[in-house]
Amino acid sequence: MLHETKPIRARLLISCHDRPGIVSSVSTFLHEHNANIVQSDQYSTDPSGGMFFMRVEFDLFENGLKFAQVKEAFAAVANTFEMEWQMELESRKKKMAIFVSKEDHCLLELLWKWRAGELIVDIPLVISNHADQREAVEAYGIPFIHIPVTKETKKEAEQKAIDLLHEYEVDFIVLARYMQILSPTFVAAFPKRIINIHHSFLPAFIGANPYAKAFERGVKLIGATAHYVTDDLDEGPIIEQDVLRVNHRYTAEQLRVAGRNVERIALARAVTWHSNDQIIVYGNKTVVF
Amino acid sequence: MLHETKPIRARLLISCHDRPGIVSSVSTFLHEHNANIVQSDQYSTDPSGGMFFMRVEFDLFENGLKFAQVKEAFAAVANTFEMEWQMELESRKKKMAIFVSKEDHCLLELLWKWRAGELIVDIPLVISNHADQREAVEAYGIPFIHIPVTKETKKEAEQKAIDLLHEYEVDFIVLARYMQILSPTFVAAFPKRIINIHHSFLPAFIGANPYAKAFERGVKLIGATAHYVTDDLDEGPIIEQDVLRVNHRYTAEQLRVAGRNVERIALARAVTWHSNDQIIVYGNKTVVF
Amino acid sequence: MLHETKPIRARLLISCHDRPGIVSSVSTFLHEHNANIVQSDQYSTDPSGGMFFMRVEFDLFENGLKFAQVKEAFAAVANTFEMEWQMELESRKKKMAIFVSKEDHCLLELLWKWRAGELIVDIPLVISNHADQREAVEAYGIPFIHIPVTKETKKEAEQKAIDLLHEYEVDFIVLARYMQILSPTFVAAFPKRIINIHHSFLPAFIGANPYAKAFERGVKLIGATAHYVTDDLDEGPIIEQDVLRVNHRYTAEQLRVAGRNVERIALARAVTWHSNDQIIVYGNKTVVF
Amino acid sequence: MLHETKPIRARLLISCHDRPGIVSSVSTFLHEHNANIVQSDQYSTDPSGGMFFMRVEFDLFENGLKFAQVKEAFAAVANTFEMEWQMELESRKKKMAIFVSKEDHCLLELLWKWRAGELIVDIPLVISNHADQREAVEAYGIPFIHIPVTKETKKEAEQKAIDLLHEYEVDFIVLARYMQILSPTFVAAFPKRIINIHHSFLPAFIGANPYAKAFERGVKLIGATAHYVTDDLDEGPIIEQDVLRVNHRYTAEQLRVAGRNVERIALARAVTWHSNDQIIVYGNKTVVF
Repeated sequence: MLHETKPIRARLLISCHDRPGIVSSVSTFLHEHNANIVQSDQYSTDPSGGMFFMRVEFDLFENGLKFAQVKEAFAAVANTFEMEWQMELESRKKKMAIFVSKEDHCLLELLWKWRAGELIVDIPLVISNHADQREAVEAYGIPFIHIPVTKETKKEAEQKAIDLLHEYEVDFIVLARYMQILSPTFVAAFPKRIINIHHSFLPAFIGANPYAKAFERGVKLIGATAHYVTDDLDEGPIIEQDVLRVNHRYTAEQLRVAGRNVERIALARAVTWHSNDQIIVYGNKTVVF
Repeated sequence: MLHETKPIRARLLISCHDRPGIVSSVSTFLHEHNANIVQSDQYSTDPSGGMFFMRVEFDLFENGLKFAQVKEAFAAVANTFEMEWQMELESRKKKMAIFVSKEDHCLLELLWKWRAGELIVDIPLVISNHADQREAVEAYGIPFIHIPVTKETKKEAEQKAIDLLHEYEVDFIVLARYMQILSPTFVAAFPKRIINIHHSFLPAFIGANPYAKAFERGVKLIGATAHYVTDDLDEGPIIEQDVLRVNHRYTAEQLRVAGRNVERIALARAVTWHSNDQIIVYGNKTVVF
Repeated sequence: MLHETKPIRARLLISCHDRPGIVSSVSTFLHEHNANIVQSDQYSTDPSGGMFFMRVEFDLFENGLKFAQVKEAFAAVANTFEMEWQMELESRKKKMAIFVSKEDHCLLELLWKWRAGELIVDIPLVISNHADQREAVEAYGIPFIHIPVTKETKKEAEQKAIDLLHEYEVDFIVLARYMQILSPTFVAAFPKRIINIHHSFLPAFIGANPYAKAFERGVKLIGATAHYVTDDLDEGPIIEQDVLRVNHRYTAEQLRVAGRNVERIALARAVTWHSNDQIIVYGNKTVVF
Repeated sequence: MLHETKPIRARLLISCHDRPGIVSSVSTFLHEHNANIVQSDQYSTDPSGGMFFMRVEFDLFENGLKFAQVKEAFAAVANTFEMEWQMELESRKKKMAIFVSKEDHCLLELLWKWRAGELIVDIPLVISNHADQREAVEAYGIPFIHIPVTKETKKEAEQKAIDLLHEYEVDFIVLARYMQILSPTFVAAFPKRIINIHHSFLPAFIGANPYAKAFERGVKLIGATAHYVTDDLDEGPIIEQDVLRVNHRYTAEQLRVAGRNVERIALARAVTWHSNDQIIVYGNKTVVF
């Protein structure tokens, strides 16, 4: 088969109740619309009456139908199976906002991976409740917005952030060690679209000062957990976790320093997967394809 | 959809040149034959002109077509795309022969996982060039065949083994620290069906005494590699590798002892994947779904 | 220096308040008693006013003083610094009792490592509240004692076990997936000498059914924790922890099966370290040298 | 014991032939010079006739002897045992030069850890055969020296670098993905003081393009190795190694991208250990305390 133009790649994510014929309908639809499946992953919680999840990468040739038309046409298939779904061009970069406080390790990891081409997103702005990271962020050519937060101004500050995020048409938010708890209003404005890094192996050491708690408990591994933010603190769907071996010689402070290396790795993986449409949230869990 | 009988599960493995429509054809075939896809994985080396690999698990209802008929009917699809393929019932346990010499750690790991139900195979026999493991094997109710090998009798001994393997209708062979090099004749009799565990992180330390070599080189991690056996020693397709952190305190002997733990883990994973039809060999590599 | 006899190796463990001169006093004592330090490790929680911990391996030549005399003489040094200490010959194998219920994976791991010479202990008996593992244990030539436990007979059963452990002069006890909670009376009889394996990454998922809880929470790593038993369930000093990567495809049952592999690895390491006098307990933590 | 001044911490590294009395002599010396041992590690390749290695951290009180006097006095002990040794103040930061080519991941990891206080060194200059990283380096306030290298100018370029390194009194050099092979003359000028990161799990994939070779071989783990540079390419004493799990989906380019994350972790650990005087080289191996 000869094509004069390079194909464009797109991704399809599907969640629905499992029943026979879904894969066949989806793949036949794609084939009939001149799309070549490049990769597909599928998972059912239970083939009889469970939930069905699927991720498909496909190549579309411009001398066939245009992407917008394919997407529109797919609605019919989706309706048949009552799917939740999304179809996106790979070339359509997500707009990612980063929230940061004073610590820079997670922020810099994301910025470095972004500049190195490992993390394919646009970063229209970084928001912080402190001014410390302004220079580092602006050195990457990214606007840095300082929105101080006090107990009294929190509501107002959040509204200002929400307005900015809407103005910049932000797709998702990464809390790169942002040390403020977001209100339910804020969370509700970006459902399943806020990724946080918690500095422990959840559900161990929920809440503040996990390294101090880990030190007290005398653990032999410390961890970090990247998860979507929900209204329940540190209880949202887990995306990724990783750990690091430590021993009795580590002080609480040394655990904190060592832990930074796990935090940035776990967060960077989670953000990469989200940006590549590799994650489906169901209930309080994630499917990572 | 109501079914009076429990479905039977089957697995389909496919390799062929990539071209549009394969997934659609396969999934539509299965749907039309009343089979429900439970899980599918797919990989292309290159969507334009590369190789296509697919693994599908599906449930078949006996009040629909019988498995044998489905399998026969699939040949038409397979021919269209010039597929190499296999379709097997999950309930059809593979017959696995184990070859062992004196060391028991890999042997016992496999036997334990088999009895614990982690490894779903039949083990019709264990063959050894030494008598040491007879008691351990027979305690599991498995026939133990002692076939001594000397330089003079090697050809004869191998023929005796091949005859036994054919007699017991063995599907695949695991060399669980079998310290004899198999002849090309033997290897040719079981292509892509002999799994070996090499006690190093290949391609480092090919050949004999890898732990002594690792000690000499002063490595900080030791490893093990499970691979399919080909005529080129330690050069066959790698299935799984794992490593273990060591330090300057380890003697060569302690590396050997510690390494046993990595060897049995890597081998057990590889054998499990093979027994579950999760591996496709292409060229000198493996796709592990 | 020439010696006609092979040296005998011994181990010294020390805990005391840190102050200047401890290492000097200990090493000079050993040198003056014709003992050659082979390995030494030392750790202070805080050089000013903290706790001091030390482990020394040394070789003693029989044509010098006898071990018993050296040990007796060391008491003077120990008194000066108000040390808690122990000095043991490496050749003096500890007597280890194993408690098990129905699951065999941790039991067999220990028995295999014992027979393979990786775990240097004597195993005078295995005690179980079920009869299932009798055959497996007796195949290793080890007495298997079945002590059923019901709510009504628990006190009596524990006393029977304690009597047996004393009769066999057991040094320490390993709970190799023993599914009974020991009473404070039992624990008090073997302080810092009962090792348990908990099937989660503590302090996550304390108590029963950790794999079911891990499944519900949607974790991406599962873990196991070997710890000394205290009166607070799953709260004793942690000796070792390890984790295994899992994903959304694992059912709760598959987490349980996969977890067995981490449990036996973590437990075997902890037992090995204890048997080699590598662990010092302080407060609710362990120093592992 | 009361001290009016805060103690100063120092480190002592020792290599010599093992024989009785070393630990005793060293610790007694320190005690007599009013130094408190904070941590000590010791290792013998063989207690009878092997090599002895020791690292001691100790606190010295200024109202006792001055550090320089202690160091001078220790020479007598060192002579007795024919030690190779070094004694340094912890506060005396080593001067580290970084060599880099075009890729920035290892460079930035070191610079970030340096600024974050994880890596305690001075960085008087960064040398590169390309100009690409000038801006990134100068943003950290560190001089960036561009020394182009061609086949013709290599000797001259190296001499220029050596002169600069001497001028800045550089203690050790880190090749943070510096894509030039150093001449024996250069290596001889900084023996055991040049650390390189090789982008494979040595001794696998020695030489150029290890990721392409790893892709060809179909490995399931990729690795990185930090080692001291010797005249034999990729054959110097290994300091640290680490690996990352990959699978059949990775292209050679994706292996390269993923591998960057292992490279920077392994290199940063090695550099930290070197800067903390935790490494002793013996023969072609390292002891890492």
